[in-house]
Amino acid sequence: MRLVSIEGRLHALVAQGARAIDLGGAASLPTGPCQFLAAGGLDRVSDIIAEAEERLAADATVPIGVDMLQAKLQAPIPKPRMIWCIGINYRDHAAETGRSTERPAEPTVFAKSPGALLAHDGTIVVPPNVTKPDWEGEVAVVIGRRARDVSQSDALSYVAGVTAANDVSARDHQFTTTQFTWSKSIDTFCPLGPVLVTLDEVDVGNLDLTTRVNGVVMQRGNTRDLIFSIPELVCMLSAGVTLEPGDVILTGTPAGVGNARTPPVFLGDGDSVEVTVEGVCTLRNRVSRPG
Amino acid sequence: MRLVSIEGRLHALVAQGARAIDLGGAASLPTGPCQFLAAGGLDRVSDIIAEAEERLAADATVPIGVDMLQAKLQAPIPKPRMIWCIGINYRDHAAETGRSTERPAEPTVFAKSPGALLAHDGTIVVPPNVTKPDWEGEVAVVIGRRARDVSQSDALSYVAGVTAANDVSARDHQFTTTQFTWSKSIDTFCPLGPVLVTLDEVDVGNLDLTTRVNGVVMQRGNTRDLIFSIPELVCMLSAGVTLEPGDVILTGTPAGVGNARTPPVFLGDGDSVEVTVEGVCTLRNRVSRPG
Repeated sequence: MRLVSIEGRLHALVAQGARAIDLGGAASLPTGPCQFLAAGGLDRVSDIIAEAEERLAADATVPIGVDMLQAKLQAPIPKPRMIWCIGINYRDHAAETGRSTERPAEPTVFAKSPGALLAHDGTIVVPPNVTKPDWEGEVAVVIGRRARDVSQSDALSYVAGVTAANDVSARDHQFTTTQFTWSKSIDTFCPLGPVLVTLDEVDVGNLDLTTRVNGVVMQRGNTRDLIFSIPELVCMLSAGVTLEPGDVILTGTPAGVGNARTPPVFLGDGDSVEVTVEGVCTLRNRVSRPG
Repeated sequence: MRLVSIEGRLHALVAQGARAIDLGGAASLPTGPCQFLAAGGLDRVSDIIAEAEERLAADATVPIGVDMLQAKLQAPIPKPRMIWCIGINYRDHAAETGRSTERPAEPTVFAKSPGALLAHDGTIVVPPNVTKPDWEGEVAVVIGRRARDVSQSDALSYVAGVTAANDVSARDHQFTTTQFTWSKSIDTFCPLGPVLVTLDEVDVGNLDLTTRVNGVVMQRGNTRDLIFSIPELVCMLSAGVTLEPGDVILTGTPAGVGNARTPPVFLGDGDSVEVTVEGVCTLRNRVSRPG
């Protein structure tokens, strides 16, 4: 199933993506995406879609929903409680940044502020105090059920789905201290979405990821090359730490970031950045960098 | 003013702390602490208290509120959107951990998951995968108004008040990677509160901080010794990053953590940890460490 958020409510895409069904409204379930997931709504999506499609077929009208092309799509989880981020999770990216490519004992985990969230088609606004804004295309995972101490083999049953993300990073601030969180929490520095695809449609162990800047391919990766796989990440993050429905996990970026190029390349005013997760969605954002 | 949260609603303490007035209910303001702050409720607290105290004096009953001693106090902000944490912000702590005591260009910023929050009197539960649980007594700041790009001189006008915090840390996981967030996001590893004191009652530049474990003083500090002062932190954090009402900033811990002792000391089953911010409150939590 392919899910999007419109006006704070989770919708399922039907009719080849041309129509969106309001899932909360259709099933008397909570309307906010996090609440919808927490109420176990995901288990009922198939029935909701089937019923809506019957009505669609019967009278060719949209029972509940809006035309996707006219709608203002939000990030699929517009207000996540927590954006967990995994650093150094592809060997080629570890290598290009001069780090060890050995698998460490644990994943590198930091956070982005939920305030950094940006929707598809939104503008990445680089503030004047940031001189080295860089891209990091990533596969993002959304937690679907409260998870704590889950095993690796059960981990995927706690995942609602996957989407695309851009872990935009202010490189001039990222390395002034040891900690990454602030330099990656600048307003608009977390584009996410637009489509959340549930796991019946994708294999999280084999997702192609491509980042393009102004149409030029800058990063190519595949989740089969993750140092810590998605099931491992859910398992290890949840060891003593409760993950809530709607929590987002950015799973790491492959080689090809701007800061590792010779000479380094950063995002400039008017640039277009696209992150494509094959079979899931393309996340496109323009950059505004005044001055 | 001295504020606490009870059943998700912000209350003001009156009658020497024996009574609590429901601020949202009294003024038809939103009831959640974050929403109350966002609606500018703080500007009206004096009037609300004055009116309630008049009624208290007139008939010696509690107009709105509960007895503080009987109430289950929550963290003053029970559901913060973001818990910003500052590392290495006292020179004596930098020294005891073998780090430079020079002032860096920027503060060290990481996050704790909101899911780690714990109230006063709540139990710090150490999960089996954590072998080195340590204390970090801190002064916490709560943001009162949406803040972005605020100057250092204006910074305190964006602060709702201060409270006590314990940045409990799993030292066995903190240093396996460069990033601190996960090892400090274990469930119950963020005791906060119980009283939020507004800035009319305290000088944030001169707050004594003491941490006691089983009654023994382990840490002593004063905010005059912060490397980055509270106004500097609000100013620097907000440079391109929007801080929301109810956001919490843990301002760093002074020397005396368990991991820096010879030999190291960690929290054990049944231990009592108290963080006192003089003139503000004492935050007391017991430790459960089964096995």
